Amino acid sequence: MTRTELVAQIRQKKSYLTVGLDTDITKIPPHLQSHPDAVFTFNKAIIDATLEYCVSYKINTAFYESQGLKGWEALEKTVHYIPSTHFKIADAKRGDIGNTSSQYAKTFFEVLPFDAVTVAPYMGEDSVRPFLEYDNKWTIVLGLTSNAGSLDFQKLSLASSEKMLYEQVLEKTVSWGTPNNLMFVVGATRASDLQHIRTIIPDHFLLVPGVGFQGGSLEEVSQYGLNKDCGLLVNASRAIIFASSKENFAEEAATIAATYAAEMKQYLEV
Amino acid sequence: MTRTELVAQIRQKKSYLTVGLDTDITKIPPHLQSHPDAVFTFNKAIIDATLEYCVSYKINTAFYESQGLKGWEALEKTVHYIPSTHFKIADAKRGDIGNTSSQYAKTFFEVLPFDAVTVAPYMGEDSVRPFLEYDNKWTIVLGLTSNAGSLDFQKLSLASSEKMLYEQVLEKTVSWGTPNNLMFVVGATRASDLQHIRTIIPDHFLLVPGVGFQGGSLEEVSQYGLNKDCGLLVNASRAIIFASSKENFAEEAATIAATYAAEMKQYLEV
Repeated sequence: MTRTELVAQIRQKKSYLTVGLDTDITKIPPHLQSHPDAVFTFNKAIIDATLEYCVSYKINTAFYESQGLKGWEALEKTVHYIPSTHFKIADAKRGDIGNTSSQYAKTFFEVLPFDAVTVAPYMGEDSVRPFLEYDNKWTIVLGLTSNAGSLDFQKLSLASSEKMLYEQVLEKTVSWGTPNNLMFVVGATRASDLQHIRTIIPDHFLLVPGVGFQGGSLEEVSQYGLNKDCGLLVNASRAIIFASSKENFAEEAATIAATYAAEMKQYLEV
Repeated sequence: MTRTELVAQIRQKKSYLTVGLDTDITKIPPHLQSHPDAVFTFNKAIIDATLEYCVSYKINTAFYESQGLKGWEALEKTVHYIPSTHFKIADAKRGDIGNTSSQYAKTFFEVLPFDAVTVAPYMGEDSVRPFLEYDNKWTIVLGLTSNAGSLDFQKLSLASSEKMLYEQVLEKTVSWGTPNNLMFVVGATRASDLQHIRTIIPDHFLLVPGVGFQGGSLEEVSQYGLNKDCGLLVNASRAIIFASSKENFAEEAATIAATYAAEMKQYLEV
């Protein structure tokens, strides 16, 4: 999906919501757990119910890998089920030496029809480049994450510039791609950092996890993060998909997604 | 596998060789490429032929993921085929927020019988901890990698201490585990760095990729990296497994592995 197409979807829906399919099989409704194809059946119901409120789905590969072969099968079925109108993110946090990263890029962009994959920057340029070589595909590099551990290394100051590591990651990585094929993960739990981040990367799309269960504020994220093309994909996972463990789980998920979307509509119209 | 068991294997074999199963299906011998179970058939032959010269196998998950479901099936069959005498490494470079890293740990340590998994440190302590919670399993954190991109961030100096980022990663991460459950990836292409790294982490095992095709010197790695318990697992992938593309590929792989092992025996006996 191109940036123009993504922005058009956001404008049309008036939403920049990403629904995170962190489908933990132990947390899906009890009535589905014994289903022979439980994870995909659950995802299908969630997708059908939330489609009109979001522009994107993010599949967290860890929850599928941990189910073995059956999990990868559910992942494949899920990504193929998501309609082409929606931006499909593999939240995989991959990254390795060049010839290995090329294989990961092939996995998510050729073998599977994802639009984007999240990538860890620690190994530097040649670990990121192979993902950027695909037309109309996106690399989403970890900038500042939403977890407590982001303080351990990402916020360390560098000697040469007094910049923090994550700022250096943003500045350096920007030169490897363009705002049309590169996004960054910026955690919503530090929304005040967003204002600063927008001075470094005013144009790039940001994938913002951490709203919902992790405590981030959608209002603050939107206040500091929105740019002229929207520039945000705000993800909520557990808060939406596990809104209810009853038979009407999909309906409840839609209600939460609709609430986020309604709030986003206000911020887009300002 | 415990550290005592790993060291005993090394002492018995007089080898600290890891064979990297980076099984790129386009590079396996032509006569195997049309085999319905090509990757596993290739791996099986390589394992049978090299078993006596190495103490460990490293499966690079990227090359299996890129083959889709069939690839994961080959990965599962391969790790189950490796005998319990050999240390099994999932080279997966995973790492995410805590509840997601827990799923990755489950994948490699419960669903699959790996002894160790490689982990990227960028997201900090809570992204690494879930891997360390398993008894007799190992977390191998990226320290200083063997690729050109390692200069981009790993070698940046920090303001507080003038240490480089990778040094800070080593020092900080060491406190999260012990030499019995934590190793580090240190690339062989900068063998001179090993001497310095041994002043920071004298006791930990190091997984050293980069010997062979990437140009690292086994002699230098051994000179600076060996400690009283050996403390090294030196990996060669392409140099061994793709030594020949003829029908005798496994025999040729064994010859290369034997050459590495013979050299290692000398260094262990010094």
